[in-house]
Formats: sequence, structure tokens, C-alpha cells
Amino acid sequence: MPLVVVGSVALDTVHTPTETRENVLGGSASYFAYAASYFTPVRLVSAVGDDWPAEFTELFRSRNIDTAGLRVVPGAKTFRWTGKYLPNMNDRQTLDVQLNVFNQFDPVLPEEFTRCQFLFLANGPPAIQLRVLEQCPGARLTVADTMDLYINHARDDLAALLKRIDGLVLNDSEAKLLTGDENLVRAGHAVREMGPRFVVIKKGEHGAMFFSKHETYVLPAYPTPNVVDPTGAGDSFGGGMMGYLAEQGDFEPKTLKEAMAYGTLAASFTVEDFSLDRLKQIEREDLDRRMQEYRRMLSF
Amino acid sequence: MPLVVVGSVALDTVHTPTETRENVLGGSASYFAYAASYFTPVRLVSAVGDDWPAEFTELFRSRNIDTAGLRVVPGAKTFRWTGKYLPNMNDRQTLDVQLNVFNQFDPVLPEEFTRCQFLFLANGPPAIQLRVLEQCPGARLTVADTMDLYINHARDDLAALLKRIDGLVLNDSEAKLLTGDENLVRAGHAVREMGPRFVVIKKGEHGAMFFSKHETYVLPAYPTPNVVDPTGAGDSFGGGMMGYLAEQGDFEPKTLKEAMAYGTLAASFTVEDFSLDRLKQIEREDLDRRMQEYRRMLSF
Repeated sequence: MPLVVVGSVALDTVHTPTETRENVLGGSASYFAYAASYFTPVRLVSAVGDDWPAEFTELFRSRNIDTAGLRVVPGAKTFRWTGKYLPNMNDRQTLDVQLNVFNQFDPVLPEEFTRCQFLFLANGPPAIQLRVLEQCPGARLTVADTMDLYINHARDDLAALLKRIDGLVLNDSEAKLLTGDENLVRAGHAVREMGPRFVVIKKGEHGAMFFSKHETYVLPAYPTPNVVDPTGAGDSFGGGMMGYLAEQGDFEPKTLKEAMAYGTLAASFTVEDFSLDRLKQIEREDLDRRMQEYRRMLSF
Repeated sequence: MPLVVVGSVALDTVHTPTETRENVLGGSASYFAYAASYFTPVRLVSAVGDDWPAEFTELFRSRNIDTAGLRVVPGAKTFRWTGKYLPNMNDRQTLDVQLNVFNQFDPVLPEEFTRCQFLFLANGPPAIQLRVLEQCPGARLTVADTMDLYINHARDDLAALLKRIDGLVLNDSEAKLLTGDENLVRAGHAVREMGPRFVVIKKGEHGAMFFSKHETYVLPAYPTPNVVDPTGAGDSFGGGMMGYLAEQGDFEPKTLKEAMAYGTLAASFTVEDFSLDRLKQIEREDLDRRMQEYRRMLSF
């Protein structure tokens, strides 16, 4: 089943303790779409400026990502993010953000996209996420991501969003911030009680947790010795997870857990190089091969 | 098979964000021995002062822990530790340490103990750990724990110890300190290359990692909503792990992974109350029941 993702596409400058890359392809929707494309056709909704390299659009198309919803806004500039990783490669500082074209991002989905059954609302203002949701009345599975900025400054909109979506994906510090509870097991269920049927808490190098009314579980990250750039790991997680769900066409507990595992593995490849460079080298078979190792790792 | 543990027994004062407990039973060997006692007979080697409450010795004996090696030193005081947990319940500050009787701890094992096949050297000066090792020439499986103090100030002794033991258990920050590598997968193998056949890195609420020449894996912590006091979680992990290995009488890869899981679950009970209070309430069946849930959680 096709999967629609609405979110940011960006040009990133990334400093790691050993290297710097400037103006590489980034943005939550880029990582999400690329990771999801191993599983299902993806329809990308985003906006860029006229500084956007056409080769990046070509890269999306080469992986069956429909860019009909990627608007190039004349006279505008593409969203830019600059960040620096601490030596532990898990914590980072944002050095600069230029929202640019995202200052006015309020997408109108192509008509064909509005009939989607699987919809992912990547990180963005909850009011915008809600307006996208309203354009897709027939969606069977709607999942959103959020961040500290909106938890702190758009709490009412976020609360309204949470009552309307099936799933929320957020990271550990955001879950603590949203609930005021430092225990992630309690925090996950507290977020779930705000509306969504399921909640996923991403813990970076420590894996991800899943919460539904009847289930609580943790899956560890795949232990890769080769962490080059963690940017986009969480978005790749979302893409692998939602891509697999859309491919399977259901969201039963068993499918959701497999989807969590595929999200984990998509993220494990992403961190092995800058930008989408590692994902560009792999095929679905590589994900499946790593899945076999991952299952073996967790069985005893 | 009987399991010998050599390490500290202490009186702890613990401050959590919501509660304080004074002079409760603590110490690495206490937690270790109690957790291991669900699986195998345990022989405890430690020292206390004449302020030691006899009821704590009785508590050990009630669980088939042989206290013939628990020396009460006249005129000495028991080791005391005071610590305070930060709101995240994973990080802590040590407020006060009084080594007391451990200033002169250089144990001579009861003759029967020296014939042990399974030996655990809980946290202590590596020179002392080495001297204990030499008293047990027939041990088939020797595993040690260590800490930042000895990594920083007894590096040569620690290096000598690492060449003599089968396994090392340490926490994530200690593994990074010992190897200078922030990536735990690489750090784990780097420690292994210093001598031990296997290395276990404990990550607190994020689980534990295992490294041998042919295996690298991570098991997540059991997600408990009820973290009251994390003191002793790592030592309980070691006790559950070594207790299961001694019970099984082997240390094949399959047994080691099951042992990692039992260690994880022993720790998950320990954190649910202060001191040994939660462990005191459970039986082996409770560990086995939680093991079933844990296996289910990790299978998909």
C-alpha cells in the first residue's frame, strides 16, 4: 500500500568528532521516505527553495518515491540545519536552524495522495499536522512524530492531535517532558492515555519501546560498531516501521512488532554513514539479512 | 554447583527523589549472593565490623548462603555507603564512603571454598582479586567486576587480572574509560582483547551487552514501571547470571545467553524496592514467570 509522509526536507551541515559534511541531504521526511521505500511505494509531501539540488529529487525518484508533493517554492530557500555531535555520538547540539521555506509550510496534498490509507506526519507544528490529517479522511493508520519545541509551545494543538492519531513516535527526553515522568514505562503509557492507540519511544543507541493497552516491550538497537553520523536515525526508524506496516497492509500486534524491528534495522544502517549514503548502498535483502541476525541475537 | 563470591557487604543510606532509607543491607556481595541463591548454593566471603546486625547474617543463611567466609572483625566497623539518585533514577551521586573494615580486607578463603569451580570476584582492588584467584586454582569459571577507581589508579593490577579471568562484568562508563572508545560495541571487544574470553557491559535501565570472540549481542532491561531504588541492580545482575551458570554447570554460548537473561530479571526485581526487600518477596518461580514474559517480549 502506498504510504504518504509529510515533513521536512533539508540541507544539513553535520559535525562529528572526526568529520564535517556540509549541505548534505537531510530532513525528517527524507530519511523517513528513503527508509520506507525498501518496503512500499512512498509519496513525499514537503517544500524546498530554488537552491534545492535537482539530483536529490532524482535520488528520491530512483527509489520509487513519488515527489509530486515536493513543492519547489520560487524565491525561497531550503530548510537548513547545522548540528554537532558530542563524543558519545548519542547527544548533539543544534548550532543553527534556518527554517526558510518551512516558515510558510502549510501543505495541500495532491488529490491522489489524500486517498492514502497509511499516513505519517513527521515532526512539525501540530496545527499543521492536524490540517494534513483532515485532508486524508480515509486513512486507516495515522502516525505522528513530535518534538520538545511543540511540547513546550503548542501543547493545546498537540493535545488535539493526540486525540486524532493512531500512533505517536517520540524520543525518550520528549516523552519525559510531555508527561513529567522520568520512568519511561510509565511515561509511555501516560502518553498513550492522551489519545493514541500506541506509542513508540525512541531511545537512540538504546533501542525503542512500544506501548499499547495490552503490550509493553523494548527492543534494543542493533549493535553496530560503526556509528559515523546518527542524524536521521529516528526518522529512518519511523520509515522502516511505517514502510513495513504499509507493505503488510495491517497493524496487528505481531505486524507492529516486526515493524518495530525493521525500523530498528533501517536506523542501524543510516548511522553507518553521513546523510543517506549508507542507505543508498543497501537493498531490501540487506535489511532481511540483518533481520535474521537480529532475531538470532534476541532468541535464547 | 556451589558458587563463591568475594566482595563487599555494607550498610547503605540511600536517598531517592521521594524517600530515604538509612543503614539498610547493601554491598556488592550481598546483592550478588542473594540473587544467585535462587539458582545455586552460594558461599560468601566478606568482612564486617561488630556493628553488623546479626539478623542480616540470618537473612543470608535463610537462603542457603554459606556465611563461613563472612568474617566479623572485632573493633572494626562495617563498610558504609551513602548515595543519592537523580530524578532519572539511573544516575547517582556518592555522598559518603567509609571503607572501614575494607581498608584491610585481604581474605583467606575457608579451605572448602578454595575448591570452588565457579568464582565471582565482586568489585574490589584488582591486587586483592588476584590473590583470591590464586587461592582457587581449580576454578573452571572465574568472573570479575571492576570500577572507575581501579581503572584510573590500579591499571597495571587490573591488566594482570584481565589476563587471568574468564569473564569481566563492568558498566558502560567504565568500559569507555578502560578503552577510551565511546562506541560500546568496539569498547566491549577491546576489553575482551585485554584477556577475558567474554565481557559483559551493563547499561543500567538500558540492559546489557555480551561480547565473545564469535558473539556480540544486547539484551534490553525488563521494562518495570516500578523503579524504587536501583542500588544493587548491577550486582544482582551478576548474581543471577553466575548463579544460573553454576546451576547449569556449564558456560556454553546458549547457557551464557540464558544466564544474561536471568541476570537481567534478577536486577529487574531488585530495583522494585530498597535493599533486598523486593528479592526477599520472590521465589525462583517468580523469576521463571518473568522469564516467560521476557522471552515473549523479545520474540516476533
